[in-house]
Amino acid sequence: MKIGIITIGSELLNGSRLDTNAHWIAKNVIHYNGEIVSKKSILDDKNDIITALDSFLKNSLDMILITGGLGPTHDDITAHTLYKYFNDEPIFDSSYWEKLKKRFKSKGLDVSNMDKSQALIPSKGKIIPNQLGSARGLHFNSKDTKIIAMPGVPSEMKSMMNETILPMIQRSSKISINYRILRTTGISESHLFNDLKGLIKKYLDVNIAFLPSFLGVDLRISSQNKISFDSLLKKIYDFIGEYIYSTSNESLEEVVIKMLIEKTLTISTAESCTGGHISDRLTNVTGASSVFVGGFVTYSNTLKTNLLNVNNKILNDHGAVSEETAISMAIGVQKKLSTDIGISTTGIAGPGGGTIKKPVGLVFIGIAYNNIAKAYKFNFNHNRISNKMITAQVALNLLRKNLAKLEK
Amino acid sequence: MKIGIITIGSELLNGSRLDTNAHWIAKNVIHYNGEIVSKKSILDDKNDIITALDSFLKNSLDMILITGGLGPTHDDITAHTLYKYFNDEPIFDSSYWEKLKKRFKSKGLDVSNMDKSQALIPSKGKIIPNQLGSARGLHFNSKDTKIIAMPGVPSEMKSMMNETILPMIQRSSKISINYRILRTTGISESHLFNDLKGLIKKYLDVNIAFLPSFLGVDLRISSQNKISFDSLLKKIYDFIGEYIYSTSNESLEEVVIKMLIEKTLTISTAESCTGGHISDRLTNVTGASSVFVGGFVTYSNTLKTNLLNVNNKILNDHGAVSEETAISMAIGVQKKLSTDIGISTTGIAGPGGGTIKKPVGLVFIGIAYNNIAKAYKFNFNHNRISNKMITAQVALNLLRKNLAKLEK
Repeated sequence: MKIGIITIGSELLNGSRLDTNAHWIAKNVIHYNGEIVSKKSILDDKNDIITALDSFLKNSLDMILITGGLGPTHDDITAHTLYKYFNDEPIFDSSYWEKLKKRFKSKGLDVSNMDKSQALIPSKGKIIPNQLGSARGLHFNSKDTKIIAMPGVPSEMKSMMNETILPMIQRSSKISINYRILRTTGISESHLFNDLKGLIKKYLDVNIAFLPSFLGVDLRISSQNKISFDSLLKKIYDFIGEYIYSTSNESLEEVVIKMLIEKTLTISTAESCTGGHISDRLTNVTGASSVFVGGFVTYSNTLKTNLLNVNNKILNDHGAVSEETAISMAIGVQKKLSTDIGISTTGIAGPGGGTIKKPVGLVFIGIAYNNIAKAYKFNFNHNRISNKMITAQVALNLLRKNLAKLEK
Repeated sequence: MKIGIITIGSELLNGSRLDTNAHWIAKNVIHYNGEIVSKKSILDDKNDIITALDSFLKNSLDMILITGGLGPTHDDITAHTLYKYFNDEPIFDSSYWEKLKKRFKSKGLDVSNMDKSQALIPSKGKIIPNQLGSARGLHFNSKDTKIIAMPGVPSEMKSMMNETILPMIQRSSKISINYRILRTTGISESHLFNDLKGLIKKYLDVNIAFLPSFLGVDLRISSQNKISFDSLLKKIYDFIGEYIYSTSNESLEEVVIKMLIEKTLTISTAESCTGGHISDRLTNVTGASSVFVGGFVTYSNTLKTNLLNVNNKILNDHGAVSEETAISMAIGVQKKLSTDIGISTTGIAGPGGGTIKKPVGLVFIGIAYNNIAKAYKFNFNHNRISNKMITAQVALNLLRKNLAKLEK
């Protein structure tokens, strides 16, 4: 099903707001074989809406999704324009109007400020219910094209898509798509492509999309052919399984916390260069408190010694950014907070503080478990914040891989 | 100057990538009186590019900015299409080709893989230099409209905009715009609007745009009239000055770290519900290590007692989420880490753990300075991650306000 998106609102064009609505729609229609072929953002102006509709209707699309310009703050410009465009004489829906008035009063809002046009319904089109707000959606047909208007408020748009429009797309598409997201980290897009290009050539009826971000690459696998789909998934695991941390859209920290809970292991953190970013990510996960007891951010050497018992001799002989310090920090926090695992980071986040021997981006990550402690050395080459982010990501991934080994 | 944007690439339409290029362009052209009137994202398909150009050229725009579809990975589809569209017979630029070959070899890359079309130059248009990559930009004119094509790689696009295209827009606009961003936090968009609506009505020659995000609202003030601009800015400070934390695009944590450095005060953190998010934000700032020595993430009650000397009686009588505990945590970390200021958070981030007396979103923020400690109570009503984010933002803003008072 070929779909065009029109997003309406000056905030999308003057740099105020990223167009996350169109992005969300694109990510979701693809599950039901919906394909966005074009996307247009325009001002809330009648003529601009008409021009956009004209050009999209010429392209024989199956569906045009419009967001924004509904509701009282936009003078319902989208609704009024659509009524005009389709020569529709809308009807006043007095029972909905009574409902709206009640809802407004119960919230202590002034009814007189409300736009009566929100209670209009088309005579030639349909209304789409809005579970979350007062502005309902509109549905018109023009030959074989469905034209659907939704509010621009993301929560209302998403609820309308989930309740009404995605099921509509699914019914129209008649095709069932097998679909999986494989989340990877620790391997670049080009290396992934290289490892998988043989499979890509072989499985021509399976689509593999590479969705790279700074911290990893998601692979989106989709196919109408269930046998090919299952067979390719299995092969992908043989080739790059070690880099895959989730097949169900979890974050890396969710995966790590889940593994810790399963193995009833507790963890604590001793962060220098990451400044608390690892504990921040771990505590983003619901239920983290059952395995994460706490952590230290030890920026100064004094704190490394006083709180984590890092030996002064280690700091003097090897420096704060060293394998020895990372190991000592991991053991220190593990003992001090009496957890099964201690994880540490020490490095030069930049932009200052680098030397020829220890350049910006040099990072050591320490992990202590039982009576074994190990440090891993990395040379990241980014700016300060990116160095912190990539260090936390690699640390969480090291945890994941080490926890996975325990199963065997 | 009226500008249209065409962004090219399937990754922009299949939900892989947010269209950050168009967003960046919109935010930057506005300084030079450039206004984005329409934005279109299309697949890297010749016919789609032609259709988009046709429709934009009909709208008598001053400039059309195209990103994407340049360079070897896209088969230079944008360049080839533009040559055709403008009946241009491109010329092979052998000196640039020699340069490219050298650059490739010096990086150890295989020259044979490179597309010779990258060394073409238009006979009817101009080349725009690319400081960072091999794909140069293109500039054609059609009547009064400038058509400019740039690579889709964000760093290359930005460099080309900064070096060549923004100065071009500035020259064409002939108007000098006075422009300022006021960053606010702690006040909602509707309250801001209410406080400023009198001024907005009075200063008709100054534009005030409200740019809300989850953590605050930026105000973009712009005007051609310097006198009105200065006068309004002053008045805005009288009305809502307490909420403004930066006029030079700084983050809240940058402002706080700068104030601490100026006052030579050190700080430490004791975080429960924020899980390290405050120390993470503070250490995002270059130079943070001169004032931030470190912190604790104390998720469990045991750690609050063992590390921060929070009295067991306080925890038993008032609970971990209480004014008394927040104060005790702030004093505890201030003393233990010997800093001038200690800041603490304790609350119920959710989704679990709430009770009728202490619901999800209840948060106490403690600040200890000299011999005074105080706690601030809040009821945030968001999901887990948003509760953490808003708590950290409010904590940093409380620091900013308290530090500002010290000046007086």
